[in-house]
Amino acid sequence: MQLIEGPDEVRAWSRAARARGERVGFVPTMGFLHEGHLSLMRISRSRADRTLVSIFVNPTQFGPNEDLDRYPQDTEGDLAKCREVGVDAVYMPPREAMYPPGAQTWVTVDGLTGGLCGRNRPTHFRGVTTVVSILFHQVEPDLAVFGEKDYQQLQVIRRMTRDLQMPIEIVPGPIVRESDGVAMSSRNANLSAEERAQAVELNRALSWAEEQVDLGVIKLLELVPEVCSRIESQPLASVDYVEVVDAETLQPVIGELTGPARVALAVKFPSARLIDNWPLVPGGAGEA
Amino acid sequence: MQLIEGPDEVRAWSRAARARGERVGFVPTMGFLHEGHLSLMRISRSRADRTLVSIFVNPTQFGPNEDLDRYPQDTEGDLAKCREVGVDAVYMPPREAMYPPGAQTWVTVDGLTGGLCGRNRPTHFRGVTTVVSILFHQVEPDLAVFGEKDYQQLQVIRRMTRDLQMPIEIVPGPIVRESDGVAMSSRNANLSAEERAQAVELNRALSWAEEQVDLGVIKLLELVPEVCSRIESQPLASVDYVEVVDAETLQPVIGELTGPARVALAVKFPSARLIDNWPLVPGGAGEA
Repeated sequence: MQLIEGPDEVRAWSRAARARGERVGFVPTMGFLHEGHLSLMRISRSRADRTLVSIFVNPTQFGPNEDLDRYPQDTEGDLAKCREVGVDAVYMPPREAMYPPGAQTWVTVDGLTGGLCGRNRPTHFRGVTTVVSILFHQVEPDLAVFGEKDYQQLQVIRRMTRDLQMPIEIVPGPIVRESDGVAMSSRNANLSAEERAQAVELNRALSWAEEQVDLGVIKLLELVPEVCSRIESQPLASVDYVEVVDAETLQPVIGELTGPARVALAVKFPSARLIDNWPLVPGGAGEA
Repeated sequence: MQLIEGPDEVRAWSRAARARGERVGFVPTMGFLHEGHLSLMRISRSRADRTLVSIFVNPTQFGPNEDLDRYPQDTEGDLAKCREVGVDAVYMPPREAMYPPGAQTWVTVDGLTGGLCGRNRPTHFRGVTTVVSILFHQVEPDLAVFGEKDYQQLQVIRRMTRDLQMPIEIVPGPIVRESDGVAMSSRNANLSAEERAQAVELNRALSWAEEQVDLGVIKLLELVPEVCSRIESQPLASVDYVEVVDAETLQPVIGELTGPARVALAVKFPSARLIDNWPLVPGGAGEA
C-alpha cells in the first residue's frame, strides 16, 4: 500500500493507473476509520481496479465553535485498516497542500444546503463541497464513494458533480450500524458510556417511524413529534432537528408522505453531535 | 475543423488527443470573434498540439439589466475565422448542456471579485467562474488562454484554477487594439459611429497615465482624476470606474504606486459598456 502526501504525486499515481487502463475508485475520509468507512472502501474495490483513500481533517467544514480541535485521530490504526481492506494507496495531504496561502475560492450548492444540517451549520457544506472539489481535481478518480449516513452530504456532492459536470461517478454506500443499531461515526468515540447508551434511541426512534409508515401512517404529525419525544426521553440527548424530506431534492415534506422520503435527524449530546437517517417509503418498499 | 455540440463528445475528443500524447489548448469565448480572440487561438496553437475553441454566450454572467439579449452573434463568421487560424475543433454547446434543469452549484472567488467590475456587476464573476469550471470539466484541457483585456477575469480564473487545483495552465494573452488604439471587443460592434470615435479617449487617457508614470509621477491624485476628466470630456462617455490596483491581488493602491500595478477602467456609452486596462510600473519597466 502506497502512502502519498503531495498533490502532484497523487495525480501522477492516478494518471499512471488510468494509463494502464485501470479504473480509479476514491474514498475521501477525515480518518479515525470505522467499519462504515471500510464498507465504502470495499464498495470501491468491487467497482474499480484501484482504490485510493484520502485522510484529511478539513478545517473549512467546521464552524467556529465546532469540534475541529478534538476531532479524533489515529493514523497508525487507520493505515492498518486500509491495508487489511486491500486499499492500494492512502493520500494524507498536509493542510498547506489543500489550502495554499491566499485561497479564496468556494464551491457552493444552493438549494440542497439550506435545511437539515445546513440550517445550524451555515458554512459546513461549502467547506465540504470545496474540499471535495479540490480532492477530485487532485485525484481525478473515475468513481467516488460517499456514505448514506451523511445523507445530505451525499445528495449535495451528487448535485455538485452533476452541475459542474465533473466526469466522476458518485456511488452511495449504505449506513453501517453497531450491533445495537447506532450508526457508525468517528464522533461516537467522543461519547461517554452514558451518552453512548442513550444514543441507541436515535436508531430506535427512526426504526419506529419506519414501522409506522409500513403500517400505513403517512401524516407527519403522527410521526415527527413522537420521534422527537422518544429521543428527548433520554436525559443527555437534545434534538437539533428531526425532519422528513424528499429523498432527492431534500425539500421538506409538508403534511403527509406522498413519495420516497428520508427522515433525518441531528441530536446533540454534551460530548458530540450525532446524525442519522432512514428511508421512509409510503406504501412499502417492494411490499405487496 | 470539427464541430462539436455535446459535452460527452467534447470530452471524448480531448481524451483521444491526450491518449495520442498531444497537449490540448482551449480558448473559451462568447463568439462574435475578433482579432483579439484570434490572437488567443494563435497563442494556444503555439503552445499546444490541438486547439479547441468554445462559443457559448453564458447567461449567468449577465446581470438582470445587462445586454444578454443584444450580445452580438455571427456563427458562420466565427467558424470561418477559426478555420483560418487553424483551430482543430469548435465546441458550441446548447444552453441545456451547460445548465441542466435544477442546476444550483456556483464557483465563487471571494477577494478578487469585490472591486472593479465586481462592484457594479455583483453576480458577474460567479457566472464566469462557474461556466469556466463547467467547460474545464467537459474539455479537460492542458492549458487555457484568457485575454488581458478582461484583466480582472484573468486574475480571477488564475486564482480559481490555483485554489481548486485544477490541472490546467492559464496562459495570458496581451490586449489587441484597433489601429486607433481602441481595445478590441465584441461589444464595439454595438457602438454608433459617434460613440466609436469617442471611445478612442479610453486608450489615450490610459497611455497618458503610463507616460506620466514613466516620467516619475507616482501619486494617484496626479493620475486618476485626470484620466477620468479626459474620458468624460467625451460627451457620450460616462465613467463607471477608473481604479489603480495591485497587478496580482487587485487590491486598490492607496496614495501612491509602490510596485507593479494596473490602471483599469470601465466606461458606459449609451450603446455599450467598455473596459480597458494598462500596466503601470513605477521606476519604468526595464528602463534605466
